[in-house]
Amino acid sequence: MTNKNVSNEKSIPLSHGIVRQDRKLSDGRTISYYDSKTIMREAIDTRPVEKRPGLGELRLDALTNEWVVMAAHRQARAFLPPKELCPLCPTKPGLQSEIPESSYEVAVFENLSPSLALAQSDWKLPEYDGLTTPIVDAAGFCEVLCYTDNHEAHFGTLSLEQIRIVMEAWRDRTREISKLPNIAHIFAFENRGVEVGVTLHHPHGQIYAYSYLPPRVEKMLQIATDHLAKHSRPLITDIIAREVQDEVRIVAQNVDWIAYVPFASRYPFEIHIAPKVFTSDLAELTDTQADSFGAVAKESLQRLDGVFGIEMAYMASWHQAPVHVGRSALGLHLQITSIRRAPGKLKYLAGSESAMQAFIMDLKPEQSAAQLRDVKI
Amino acid sequence: MTNKNVSNEKSIPLSHGIVRQDRKLSDGRTISYYDSKTIMREAIDTRPVEKRPGLGELRLDALTNEWVVMAAHRQARAFLPPKELCPLCPTKPGLQSEIPESSYEVAVFENLSPSLALAQSDWKLPEYDGLTTPIVDAAGFCEVLCYTDNHEAHFGTLSLEQIRIVMEAWRDRTREISKLPNIAHIFAFENRGVEVGVTLHHPHGQIYAYSYLPPRVEKMLQIATDHLAKHSRPLITDIIAREVQDEVRIVAQNVDWIAYVPFASRYPFEIHIAPKVFTSDLAELTDTQADSFGAVAKESLQRLDGVFGIEMAYMASWHQAPVHVGRSALGLHLQITSIRRAPGKLKYLAGSESAMQAFIMDLKPEQSAAQLRDVKI
Repeated sequence: MTNKNVSNEKSIPLSHGIVRQDRKLSDGRTISYYDSKTIMREAIDTRPVEKRPGLGELRLDALTNEWVVMAAHRQARAFLPPKELCPLCPTKPGLQSEIPESSYEVAVFENLSPSLALAQSDWKLPEYDGLTTPIVDAAGFCEVLCYTDNHEAHFGTLSLEQIRIVMEAWRDRTREISKLPNIAHIFAFENRGVEVGVTLHHPHGQIYAYSYLPPRVEKMLQIATDHLAKHSRPLITDIIAREVQDEVRIVAQNVDWIAYVPFASRYPFEIHIAPKVFTSDLAELTDTQADSFGAVAKESLQRLDGVFGIEMAYMASWHQAPVHVGRSALGLHLQITSIRRAPGKLKYLAGSESAMQAFIMDLKPEQSAAQLRDVKI
Repeated sequence: MTNKNVSNEKSIPLSHGIVRQDRKLSDGRTISYYDSKTIMREAIDTRPVEKRPGLGELRLDALTNEWVVMAAHRQARAFLPPKELCPLCPTKPGLQSEIPESSYEVAVFENLSPSLALAQSDWKLPEYDGLTTPIVDAAGFCEVLCYTDNHEAHFGTLSLEQIRIVMEAWRDRTREISKLPNIAHIFAFENRGVEVGVTLHHPHGQIYAYSYLPPRVEKMLQIATDHLAKHSRPLITDIIAREVQDEVRIVAQNVDWIAYVPFASRYPFEIHIAPKVFTSDLAELTDTQADSFGAVAKESLQRLDGVFGIEMAYMASWHQAPVHVGRSALGLHLQITSIRRAPGKLKYLAGSESAMQAFIMDLKPEQSAAQLRDVKI
């Protein structure tokens, strides 16, 4: 059975001359292409339709009042397939991948084995009520964002032009997913390297849209809200002011963006990249901010790879304001963390970090910032 | 330079016929031997005295109001030394280890490169005050607890008699460290397996005594306090009642202890072992509870190793009530977590777990409990 719908459902102009085109995959999921060139995306997904997995569960951990997603259907997901079978490469003779086109610039589609997915229209998040809190469907939305069709590339080695398309996709996805029902928070991130559990080598990020405020966001929101009430300035604005004043932890900057090792970093190498002017989320970035992000991001990642002269495993996590609350309190910033503390040594989040959430750092932030700045690029 | 102090400073009878003897290492640290047999611990540490590392720093992460320990002096600590150079084996010809005796049952000593150490007597934890919170010394205390002098053993394969000595050491350390200045919380734990960052293979645990409430404890304390006020019963008591009623997640039990996969488990394999009667901490366990712990612990760990027929990497973390607050709200339990989701696959705490603290589980707790129960032991 193949999908017979060949019409180009949508072609939407975005900023910087980038156009989005939406298509359907054979199982009904949407794939969106983001292109800087004029090209019609008409390839048809001819794969047989497979049954989509059901929804997982949200259960409340009564010890912490935190939601845990039970997504048992994900256990069989693709795990480090060989390059010839990469599901994120373009479709080519002998490979029917997730992307029907034979080439693409940036492509985004709903995750085949999503942790969170759209629920029934009457879905509602229960209040915390300890042990009597009901189990509900794991509502939300998960997407895969392919940074390029070049399997061997890395985000940090993309051209500035290509990063600009990725940025446009991030902005557009944040805008679009914000409109979906029951979305409380949108989290765009990338894991790079098998050391942090990457299961597909192709350069890509993910977007998790939660139907609840994740524990870390809930806590940051409360603190940022208190700070705004007390000081009439967003917390991130004051944090950036301290970094500018202290100077020693700055890694890179331009007119719009600043990259720094945070004052109380938790990982051997941790870089925060923030817009200098308070911005709630990716969707609210101005075109100017969107244009100038790539240079600071590229420099930061090149410095990270340069410290030990190896491709550093990292997690890159966009912290943004929740969709409906705290829009003027919680500011956008990208948190890049690496667990590599020396060429042959990783920092493991073991006893103290995992069970107590008490972080122990082996490197002072000023020391790792100096190492990052010393890299010749 | 060698330590000339050869007198046996202390010999303290504990329960179950176990005796503690305290000695000094050459650099002034105390080593405590816990013995079930009558044996004088008189071996002298003849290693040259090396300068002890200075104190690290506590810095407040203003985004989360969480303390981060900066312990840069730990970067050069021992990392997977070969067996012949194991610092936790007894001293023998050609090896001067941390333990001067030529054999031992259980030995505990202050960590050579501690993350947290005793501070000046006027040390005081600052209040949270955002960006103006001062940096202070990383006050606290860290110990290494050697489970046996047999380098090849594992906690789960120790005899019940040997586990009883370890338990007596845990109780005694909790009691003793609670008396030290500026200790807010005591955390006894074990990391097992290189997959979770073990740097020494010799079977041992650690004790971290924090001068602040770790973030996880702070949160659990608040929820447990609210629950106690609302229901007049400790939260853990109601949690155990649910496990007993639901039955499907129970892994092992005896008269005093119950082992279960928690209702909202976060790891592919997670087992909580709790005393059936509310107990604040290890020091408050009765002798009967102390005696009967080993059987349930051994069975739980054997089941864990049996699931895939391999030695499972795990973290075993004692959650106890803080030293000075919440003594009737927060109950003792041991949390064992394993990141192995399949023989060749680990669960990584990547984007969602690390940056958002939002856990996604691949296995339902009822499913992993059934797998654990099905193991033939």
